[in-house]
Amino acid sequence: MARHTLEPMPPVAIAPFVPVSVSIDLGDRSYAIMIGADLFADAASYDGLPRGGHALIVSNDTVAPLYLDDLRQTLQSRHRHVHTVVLPDGETHKEWGTLQRIFDALLNAGCDRKTVLYALGGGVVGDMTGFAAACFMRGVSFVQVPTTLLAQVDSSVGGKTGINHPLGKNMVGAFHQPLRVLCDLNVLRSLPARELSAGLAEVIKYGPIADMAFFDWIEAHIDDLRGLEVAALSHAVQRSCEIKALVVSSDEREAGLRAILNFGHTFGHAIEAGLGYGAWLHGEAVGCGMVMAARLSQVLGLVDDAFVERVRRLVERAGLPVVAPVLDVGNNVERYLSLMRVDKKAEDGEIRFVLVDGPGKAVLRPVSDDLVADVIERSCRVA
Amino acid sequence: MARHTLEPMPPVAIAPFVPVSVSIDLGDRSYAIMIGADLFADAASYDGLPRGGHALIVSNDTVAPLYLDDLRQTLQSRHRHVHTVVLPDGETHKEWGTLQRIFDALLNAGCDRKTVLYALGGGVVGDMTGFAAACFMRGVSFVQVPTTLLAQVDSSVGGKTGINHPLGKNMVGAFHQPLRVLCDLNVLRSLPARELSAGLAEVIKYGPIADMAFFDWIEAHIDDLRGLEVAALSHAVQRSCEIKALVVSSDEREAGLRAILNFGHTFGHAIEAGLGYGAWLHGEAVGCGMVMAARLSQVLGLVDDAFVERVRRLVERAGLPVVAPVLDVGNNVERYLSLMRVDKKAEDGEIRFVLVDGPGKAVLRPVSDDLVADVIERSCRVA
Repeated sequence: MARHTLEPMPPVAIAPFVPVSVSIDLGDRSYAIMIGADLFADAASYDGLPRGGHALIVSNDTVAPLYLDDLRQTLQSRHRHVHTVVLPDGETHKEWGTLQRIFDALLNAGCDRKTVLYALGGGVVGDMTGFAAACFMRGVSFVQVPTTLLAQVDSSVGGKTGINHPLGKNMVGAFHQPLRVLCDLNVLRSLPARELSAGLAEVIKYGPIADMAFFDWIEAHIDDLRGLEVAALSHAVQRSCEIKALVVSSDEREAGLRAILNFGHTFGHAIEAGLGYGAWLHGEAVGCGMVMAARLSQVLGLVDDAFVERVRRLVERAGLPVVAPVLDVGNNVERYLSLMRVDKKAEDGEIRFVLVDGPGKAVLRPVSDDLVADVIERSCRVA
Repeated sequence: MARHTLEPMPPVAIAPFVPVSVSIDLGDRSYAIMIGADLFADAASYDGLPRGGHALIVSNDTVAPLYLDDLRQTLQSRHRHVHTVVLPDGETHKEWGTLQRIFDALLNAGCDRKTVLYALGGGVVGDMTGFAAACFMRGVSFVQVPTTLLAQVDSSVGGKTGINHPLGKNMVGAFHQPLRVLCDLNVLRSLPARELSAGLAEVIKYGPIADMAFFDWIEAHIDDLRGLEVAALSHAVQRSCEIKALVVSSDEREAGLRAILNFGHTFGHAIEAGLGYGAWLHGEAVGCGMVMAARLSQVLGLVDDAFVERVRRLVERAGLPVVAPVLDVGNNVERYLSLMRVDKKAEDGEIRFVLVDGPGKAVLRPVSDDLVADVIERSCRVA
């Protein structure tokens, strides 16, 4: 059983309209996460990044009509050649065939090892662009320009990249850090409410595992966040990135501590895979998965009922599902368990869960199947 | 223009039947290349490698009938589960669809992050297994068990892994170091003469770029090597690995010096791609490419005619082609040039060549198209 705790962190002042920067400290792979309004059209955001040569912007067919031209114009003043490739939107396309289109674009345009890729989109675009950058000519640079809340607070930060396999999510990938992350809060205005809620799941996540003061703050500001209040969004993104930066800086390749960021994800991945990728958004599955993981923590005596109810209530107020789906009417629990056994945290068929070990503290440990089965059954009943 | 030189190295004693070990010094990614007879069936060869858990042996349908059972038996005393996957043999299969079969095997067998992959085969199996290991769950361990001379002296050492793209060789890949390389000299007995010659190209390569004393030795022992004389093979593999180890240890990710190992490869890759992968063996294309690169070095005044003739003669005596193929009857030179412009060493469309800067010393530099064109034209004429 590995117990992980984070050092307490000082409270953060809320400075709504001043861009802030959070550093990821990884030696010669260190980089800045910039957070602010009107950020990605601003030339200053790119200071210090490579100039000249080739750039390839990777986006999807939802985001490209909104922001691709702006980004291309900014980059044309920095790079000699700016190419673009627009992928189909959605988790179902996070697979090799789509990734291959990025390699095709790079090679057809005559791109070389000095080429910089720019990921303009949500988590799927970021994960695929990062993985393409990790593999193209055995590694080129890339910049994250996340356009969803989920990507800004979680997936664009920390260097996890990859694609799905029919037998499991993110099973093929690489650790490859971006040169920079540009979190433009303005672009969140075009985000559908459902996607915003999905992003809030990953914001809420940081509370139970690392910072209950932040959890209190989210409870107080959940309506501001859903209302796209920029000061609230700015604080939520900044605090989320600060916590993620601390965790990633101390455990880049997930040897231990970093696994706590997967709170709610073991159940969540089973839901996504069981329903078929794309039926529920990743954040929706994680939201519901956090309620299940909180419940499992309670069953083990690590937290009390009141804590589980706080998590359930906040997930619900964020606009996320809190009742788990039935994946197989005749054999539901076994279906969940078999899907969770291919989780990357599993070792030799034993499923390991991120649990809350008292509010604000996480622990990674195996749990016996009968206790997990009990939580699955209770979570699938209408609350 | 970047000039690279290696420190002179002491001569190596020839100790035919005693296994030797060459170290690759890369900090916490350091590993040993073991060279000897009857090595891979010997349990001692695996001392210090991970035990327990899952192992997956990746091989091809030529090598598997000969050696897969032996390796499986040895590994069954070390791992709880030993799985196998047999891929179709040949460079044409070095692509995503074949790689996917490795991921399928891993996931269908319930493999986890502690799984160790074993690459039992030539360069293609080694490159694909290494790339699968680099990407599966964002990185697991692997061991190289090379069964061709080319893989023993070159491709299994140094951590370059990857697959081909229709627009270029090895365009998608990763740097991922093995835990160990086991060069069993006995398995070379089953190697077809053509494959043995192809491997000799990569042995000969080390002479002009790094060690002319070794070149002299190869000239004196080329017939012993083609006759599979074990003492000669042992020295050739050991010396090749020592030179490669020195180069890789000082430049793992090919920022500079490591590029010299691509001597003959820029022309060679154009030949392979232009004829269609698999028409010529990689080593055959490299052999011819070395003659062309030596000729280009002579055109630039870096070496004399006698040196070019020595290289040409040794390549020929190794059983390798020394006349370049015509890739396009009407437009041959342009076809070569356009294929070379996608080489990974190219920057902004400018082709850079590894040249011999005086015997035993290499230099990486761009060369104007007209000089390259002249060398292509002369090299395609029957000698």
